[in-house]
Amino acid sequence: MASLHLSKYRYKYGQFTVEGRKAVSELFHSELEIVKIVSTREFLSRNSIDFEVDLISEADYKKISQFDTPPGILALVNIPKPAIWNTNQPLTLALDGISDPGNLGTIIRIADWYGIQQILLSEDCVDLYNAKCLSATMGSFCRIECIYTDLTTALVGKTVYGAFLEGESVYKVQPINPSVLVIGSESHGIRESLKSSISHPITIPRKGNAESLNAGIATAILVDRLLNVSE
Amino acid sequence: MASLHLSKYRYKYGQFTVEGRKAVSELFHSELEIVKIVSTREFLSRNSIDFEVDLISEADYKKISQFDTPPGILALVNIPKPAIWNTNQPLTLALDGISDPGNLGTIIRIADWYGIQQILLSEDCVDLYNAKCLSATMGSFCRIECIYTDLTTALVGKTVYGAFLEGESVYKVQPINPSVLVIGSESHGIRESLKSSISHPITIPRKGNAESLNAGIATAILVDRLLNVSE
Repeated sequence: MASLHLSKYRYKYGQFTVEGRKAVSELFHSELEIVKIVSTREFLSRNSIDFEVDLISEADYKKISQFDTPPGILALVNIPKPAIWNTNQPLTLALDGISDPGNLGTIIRIADWYGIQQILLSEDCVDLYNAKCLSATMGSFCRIECIYTDLTTALVGKTVYGAFLEGESVYKVQPINPSVLVIGSESHGIRESLKSSISHPITIPRKGNAESLNAGIATAILVDRLLNVSE
Repeated sequence: MASLHLSKYRYKYGQFTVEGRKAVSELFHSELEIVKIVSTREFLSRNSIDFEVDLISEADYKKISQFDTPPGILALVNIPKPAIWNTNQPLTLALDGISDPGNLGTIIRIADWYGIQQILLSEDCVDLYNAKCLSATMGSFCRIECIYTDLTTALVGKTVYGAFLEGESVYKVQPINPSVLVIGSESHGIRESLKSSISHPITIPRKGNAESLNAGIATAILVDRLLNVSE
């Protein structure tokens, strides 16, 4: 299972690992298929759980854990079949080249908070089954469908908002649904070749002096405004 | 300078360190007092800078750096005198027990984006001069005044919004200025003893299934709504 630390082996074997009591528990409320769960004696002495696990030694656990402080419980899970994009949902997120696993996890958690069900990701985005990403989702990876795809093709003919440092103020936008919100990479923003796919460039007007907002923060503010929630 | 990795020595000596080309450059546009700047020959061979530095060997630099990948340039800076809270600004942030340096840095960056000038922090918040925090501010630590104080005393008689999982929907709030927004700790929220200081408990209504939002994300959405920006 240690080989599943690497994205290429996760996809070769069609499996990924989930660690920690809370994240493993969330799996039981999802449609994800658990292959098996392993746990250390030490973990079981401190935690009561209501599902079956295979015992594993501390030493063997350390070999497969992706954490510096191994949580002591790990599930092996089948990677689900890629979902089909439901283009009728009010807002879909599309991520272009997001490379930081913490940012991707945070964005998945934001989507889950706002009831967004699917996220499109360019194929060079970080892998969602990266341990840091899964951890940052705080369990939301169980509920949000991530679809790795060619964004240029996927966005043809759609209403597409894109986050730029220049663009129409998001405070003045009258949101159109269904639509897509594209968030660019942390360092380069939305790539040049994708810009022509953006029908509505929008921005969060800056009132102070920071050069930028991080990708997760910008996503949250834009989603909050574009969903136009008022209750 | 290696002792300045620890908060207690930073305050004992009244100094902190800033690493990285961008962060050090930002210091020159701030009122912070630079004591000295050290840099490695290797850094200088790759970067052109327009200020004076003292040369330091790679080996000595590694000893004082707080980064796994030492950036090669470090400034020693005097900790400024504590600022006085200007209670007339439209919105002041108050952080109650924020313990993650990345979260604090992100919140300082958000404040800087929205033109918030000061942040009150409970005395048990993480130290802002922590290297991870400074790094997450992306230079905004130069512009935002952080005031560590007893929040219960500071908030007496003020209009105080507090972020809770239950409360008035932030979408329905008619924001009052000047006011304060209190953000609680990542794990426990706003502490019990501070709850009576909150005149307006507010919440970001959840539309999906995530249990919570992280502290930085919640801060951004609430600030965005409470400042009621429309341009």
